[in-house]
Amino acid sequence: MFGKYTEQEFQQKAEAFHGHAAPGVLLGAFLVEAARARLPEGCIFDAVSESRQCLPDAVQLLTPCTFGNGWLKVMDLGIYAVCLYDKQTGEGWRAAVDPEKLKRFPLTREWFLKLTKKKDQDGDALRREILEHGAEMVAVRKIQMHPEELARRHKGPIAVCPVCGDAYPAKHGGTCLLCAKGRGYDLL
Amino acid sequence: MFGKYTEQEFQQKAEAFHGHAAPGVLLGAFLVEAARARLPEGCIFDAVSESRQCLPDAVQLLTPCTFGNGWLKVMDLGIYAVCLYDKQTGEGWRAAVDPEKLKRFPLTREWFLKLTKKKDQDGDALRREILEHGAEMVAVRKIQMHPEELARRHKGPIAVCPVCGDAYPAKHGGTCLLCAKGRGYDLL
Repeated sequence: MFGKYTEQEFQQKAEAFHGHAAPGVLLGAFLVEAARARLPEGCIFDAVSESRQCLPDAVQLLTPCTFGNGWLKVMDLGIYAVCLYDKQTGEGWRAAVDPEKLKRFPLTREWFLKLTKKKDQDGDALRREILEHGAEMVAVRKIQMHPEELARRHKGPIAVCPVCGDAYPAKHGGTCLLCAKGRGYDLL
Repeated sequence: MFGKYTEQEFQQKAEAFHGHAAPGVLLGAFLVEAARARLPEGCIFDAVSESRQCLPDAVQLLTPCTFGNGWLKVMDLGIYAVCLYDKQTGEGWRAAVDPEKLKRFPLTREWFLKLTKKKDQDGDALRREILEHGAEMVAVRKIQMHPEELARRHKGPIAVCPVCGDAYPAKHGGTCLLCAKGRGYDLL
């Protein structure tokens, strides 16, 4: 079971949301479940994903935390670990893929550590190995979030940019950050 | 209609995913739809949300782009605008809330520009105004993404951190970034 979903239901959910039942989403689901199972019943929690790849979608599929509602934060660290913690107290759990434990699971190890090229991997067998043994690949540690991580960030007053006319947080300065620093696109 | 959903279906989807049918998700849906309607039929597109609040969830609910599958990027600019563009050519559309157009919609304007306190807002009336007039609040511009924005980012080879034992992108250096720069939590 993944939260309230059977394995098959979760795979369907992952296909519908993420586009396919990626190995990273499946393994991510084991991380999320390992951390969540240790939180007290009814705990209102926030999530931090330490990778931007796949794992944020496992969080969004299995918990009330989404990127847009602010309960999920994503750090672009390339580390396959997730922290779930009580919003108020900061007490929680961090679940990470343990490279040491992967030694018993060669397909997952080769994929996870990028030891074989994608074209030489057997995706179905890899997914099967993860679904059967994912829980054995995870290391879980209790954590205490630092108080500054629990503070809510506020946007503050809103201004209208005198250059482009968009609304933006006044604390950013005399113009919006796009007019100040440039855009990744041309406006045609 | 929001994509394939009726207004009521979309509100239910937003409640299930985001936690509630937030005004920001509803307004975000109009932005997403305004940009997407202008893309050619069958276009495979990426998305950039210029706000981290609410809008990323409208994208994730209405398009194949999610944070975890990498098709949605989020910039923390506090600007309520979304860019959808052809993955290959970078041609696309940017839809933004236009403060000028909001002058005709006082509830939305007061909420959006934070002119009244949350406790003094009538949430139901606000949502109704957005649902009825959201499409009239949006400014759409054609965009051409810069080539460097279209390049895929690669994680490169993976190393195991000699300090903590987690796997991380070798390009980050001799240890993972958490061991190099510190964590926002104590490992207990």
